[in-house]
Amino acid sequence: MVRTSKHRGSNRPRQARRSHTSYDKSAAEAIVISKRSAAPVSEGTLRVIPIGGCEEVGRNMTLIEYGTDIIIIDMGLQWPEEDMPGIDYIIPNSEYLQGKEKNIRGVIITHGHYDHIGAIPHLAPKLGNPIIYGTPLTLGIIAKRQEDFKTGQLNLQAVDRDTVLRLGVFTVKFFGVSHNIPDSVGVIVETPYGKLVHTGDFKLDPNYSGDRPAEIDKIQKLGDGSVLALMADSTNASQPGRQLTEGEIQGNIDQIISDAPGRTIIGTFSSLLGRIQQIIWAAEKQNKKIVIEGYSMKRNVELAQALGYMKTKRDSIIDIKNIGDYPPNRIIVLCTGAQGEDNAVLMRIANKEHRVLKIEKGDTVVFSSSVIPGNERSVQRLKDSLYRLGAEVIHYQMMDVHAGGHAKQEDLYDTIQMVKPKYHIPVYGNHSFLRLHAKVALRAGIPEKNIFVPDNGQIMEFTSRGGHLTKHKVPSDYVFVDGLGVGDVSHVVLRDRQMMAEDGMIVIIATLNGKTGRLINSPDIISRGFIYMREQKKLVEQIRAKVKGLIGDHPPKAQANDSYLKDKIRNELGQFLYHKTQRRPMILPVVIEV
Amino acid sequence: MVRTSKHRGSNRPRQARRSHTSYDKSAAEAIVISKRSAAPVSEGTLRVIPIGGCEEVGRNMTLIEYGTDIIIIDMGLQWPEEDMPGIDYIIPNSEYLQGKEKNIRGVIITHGHYDHIGAIPHLAPKLGNPIIYGTPLTLGIIAKRQEDFKTGQLNLQAVDRDTVLRLGVFTVKFFGVSHNIPDSVGVIVETPYGKLVHTGDFKLDPNYSGDRPAEIDKIQKLGDGSVLALMADSTNASQPGRQLTEGEIQGNIDQIISDAPGRTIIGTFSSLLGRIQQIIWAAEKQNKKIVIEGYSMKRNVELAQALGYMKTKRDSIIDIKNIGDYPPNRIIVLCTGAQGEDNAVLMRIANKEHRVLKIEKGDTVVFSSSVIPGNERSVQRLKDSLYRLGAEVIHYQMMDVHAGGHAKQEDLYDTIQMVKPKYHIPVYGNHSFLRLHAKVALRAGIPEKNIFVPDNGQIMEFTSRGGHLTKHKVPSDYVFVDGLGVGDVSHVVLRDRQMMAEDGMIVIIATLNGKTGRLINSPDIISRGFIYMREQKKLVEQIRAKVKGLIGDHPPKAQANDSYLKDKIRNELGQFLYHKTQRRPMILPVVIEV
Repeated sequence: MVRTSKHRGSNRPRQARRSHTSYDKSAAEAIVISKRSAAPVSEGTLRVIPIGGCEEVGRNMTLIEYGTDIIIIDMGLQWPEEDMPGIDYIIPNSEYLQGKEKNIRGVIITHGHYDHIGAIPHLAPKLGNPIIYGTPLTLGIIAKRQEDFKTGQLNLQAVDRDTVLRLGVFTVKFFGVSHNIPDSVGVIVETPYGKLVHTGDFKLDPNYSGDRPAEIDKIQKLGDGSVLALMADSTNASQPGRQLTEGEIQGNIDQIISDAPGRTIIGTFSSLLGRIQQIIWAAEKQNKKIVIEGYSMKRNVELAQALGYMKTKRDSIIDIKNIGDYPPNRIIVLCTGAQGEDNAVLMRIANKEHRVLKIEKGDTVVFSSSVIPGNERSVQRLKDSLYRLGAEVIHYQMMDVHAGGHAKQEDLYDTIQMVKPKYHIPVYGNHSFLRLHAKVALRAGIPEKNIFVPDNGQIMEFTSRGGHLTKHKVPSDYVFVDGLGVGDVSHVVLRDRQMMAEDGMIVIIATLNGKTGRLINSPDIISRGFIYMREQKKLVEQIRAKVKGLIGDHPPKAQANDSYLKDKIRNELGQFLYHKTQRRPMILPVVIEV
Repeated sequence: MVRTSKHRGSNRPRQARRSHTSYDKSAAEAIVISKRSAAPVSEGTLRVIPIGGCEEVGRNMTLIEYGTDIIIIDMGLQWPEEDMPGIDYIIPNSEYLQGKEKNIRGVIITHGHYDHIGAIPHLAPKLGNPIIYGTPLTLGIIAKRQEDFKTGQLNLQAVDRDTVLRLGVFTVKFFGVSHNIPDSVGVIVETPYGKLVHTGDFKLDPNYSGDRPAEIDKIQKLGDGSVLALMADSTNASQPGRQLTEGEIQGNIDQIISDAPGRTIIGTFSSLLGRIQQIIWAAEKQNKKIVIEGYSMKRNVELAQALGYMKTKRDSIIDIKNIGDYPPNRIIVLCTGAQGEDNAVLMRIANKEHRVLKIEKGDTVVFSSSVIPGNERSVQRLKDSLYRLGAEVIHYQMMDVHAGGHAKQEDLYDTIQMVKPKYHIPVYGNHSFLRLHAKVALRAGIPEKNIFVPDNGQIMEFTSRGGHLTKHKVPSDYVFVDGLGVGDVSHVVLRDRQMMAEDGMIVIIATLNGKTGRLINSPDIISRGFIYMREQKKLVEQIRAKVKGLIGDHPPKAQANDSYLKDKIRNELGQFLYHKTQRRPMILPVVIEV
């Protein structure tokens, strides 16, 4: 075994580290236009702008604009990357819509996952509270989440698969798709130049289970030449072949549950309602009882039941306090925490902190999701702890959210062949996923010039003469959400966090006599995350002496607070500390004149 | 698509975060013994102690002790986990050896990867510079790396597969194994109670390539009942089936290189010398030229060539300045950076910062290693950038270090069947890997009571009456290397780094009149990583007013520097800021009395 680490060279491990904050998208020669120069749209031009979701998985939001009419598809969040410490999540940049709020005819949400709904509490109030259209389960999840925020009532309106909406110049229709949460839809937007079709997150599923079937007939009927452009999900476009059907996944779940000799404890995402339904069905078939643990899991199941999206027999779901009434092999616990989250149920069980559940010999713990990048080691620690307690641990990737819900290359090929769009636009995924998706479109017969691979914010325009991917972009850079702050954490703040995380910081407080410019006391030194001062008294004394020397060299009576002295302390002490420790703590000189 | 993140709940994202520094191994009822109570070993007892490598992949180091004789197998490093910001790596804890330095008869290194050699520059001087035994390539890599450190000359002594060493009471022999670096060996230690066999990192390879064959005959001969215990590599023990052979991997490499329409740029680890050799052979078969880029890659190839471990035809490897002398499809560039490392060659190419190499249409970039946890997003960004520049990007996991070099379950089964040890000890891997390995041993016929799954530091003892895994442990906790500091970064320092990374920090400087206890000036406020002060003037003023109020309430003439006032500022300002921002910056109050 050999490993390397991304911030290290073999012999000069330190110098390489500073440069890794690179949010630049090196976005070719694109010109970012201000909202003023972008508005208004030239008469007769249809604009399609993906504000987010085209350079990452998440932060999905697409604008469709014609004249003074704008509709928005999805309004999602993106989870932070590993070099964004402290950030809760990222939302789409809505700058382009400033001043155009009154043009927004509606927001259409394709399904209830956070990367499609997560920015609503932040953006809806800012955009004048437009009507948000979604299917009942989707709206239920949005409304429940809104309770966690204090940003006011939303303007929600339910649609079903057959609703027709007139939104300004646009007519909007829907088609049911298969995903791993019920009630997911694709969107058909009729525009002056033909239909724009957006799949949302989807797969084709001839062997569905746990949800109504995808409306493949509607998709096929789109292939009459009326579709101007197809925007389709690229999340799994890097994978060859076809996605598993829900029926196949159901068979796997049945098997897992039947194989377990004792209790089965299944960790999964609380938002994977389709998968949760399948597990309940499997349990019912095998006459087992289900315990649901975890706040978000309970909340989502209750919501789905209340809205009629989840069918369970009476008494299938039991309260945890009755778990002892059944033999172990009749118990299934469905819980949160398969990503190693700190406070979720699986972690509490592993840490022996769960008030009821304790691992017993014979328990099987099933991780039913693949590990999200960044969580691998937490998950590995969690599994190790569960093994220590005597559990069997199984990881079933086929039950995963990624593995189960999105079209793969051949599914995309079939979709394109059915819809026969004039233009094809891969969306929802990293740039490389979009590019691989574009290859599939080429193979499916779309001419290369009619395949657009947009960056975030990049404007596509359509007129009666055809469409093109312009070189213009609207603002699409990150808007960070951190606690109550939205957009107030800048790259400067993030860079400081990264720097302090790497090597800590040291504050030097020098109190000077305002008349003489001389030090009054010995400088105060505070260090955090750099060295443990109690154990490094010699180094602390050296720092103190160094600072005294630097201030002694300083011309007396010079302005004590000037940046010259501070810069000098920062630079010379920085060099000194690097020489002594090969670390580069942030140095904060404070000069006080009294 | 839906994602979750490990530190967040849906509605209370903040509170959960603080608890995630948990290095506790919840190590059952084990008793950690001090070095005093541990020494000496009871007469006639053979001790085997894995100091590291039994709860993780990496930091491999095993002690074998009898009377006053100690030998050490491997002395590796572990790469830091994601919650150890700024840490370069972790080395084994050598506390148990303090005072026993004179007993160390030798250190045996199985092969030249960092998780087996990386702690040598730190530990060898501390342990009295014992003789380090290894094969010539292993020693070459150790010596080259030592040049980067200023810890003095090492005491290196070369062995080959047939060397016999007498080290105190022990006789040490070797057997060649297959791994993905040449010259890897397993170790046979003859002890008073039979043979201890340690595989090192290994696989069985009936179809080898690029190295001498594994000495399967020697392994088979061990099966005469003379083996007391087998310690075997668990890195891939969670994977069913058999490992790919090097011959199969060679076939894949030949295909990749033959398929590429233009230049092939292959990113891999510089330490994967076996794989690098195979790529060179594939190139030579197809009459292509190789450019080697990257300091560590060049250094390792030169070393392997100089020692006769890498055979290349004259003129196969060309200098990068001559790259234009050949058509693109005759060029292969072998370089570093497949993990998205900042300053490695692939990243420089992607950022258009490489002095010679620029991506051209038709280039194929091959990522020939699977992504190390924590690097996924860097690698994804790198791939996206390469796609943008016009390259084709291919990821071949079968060329990976993990995929290629370690025994899988059936390989382990065969090994156990051949060696027929009395006791079996899975080592080198996470606890769950060791447990899965133990299952294989059970299936291979080892009685359950004779299979030991040790934690780090856990003592195994063997006497004429048999062996057992004791409940005693020697110190094995992390020793962090950060810059020049070894062991000086404590958990306190790390926790501060994590805290500052999450929410930044704020320094409050209050200058008081020593006589009256009153504030002299308005308090100074410095914030880093919390808010950007220029854009948050109102909050800064509120903080200032809050601090003034707190100090005003303070009884005048009280000791200004007392911890009471500081605690008060820390607590009350902390609550105030959490209420205002839902962030918890580190608060550092500084009270200066003049």
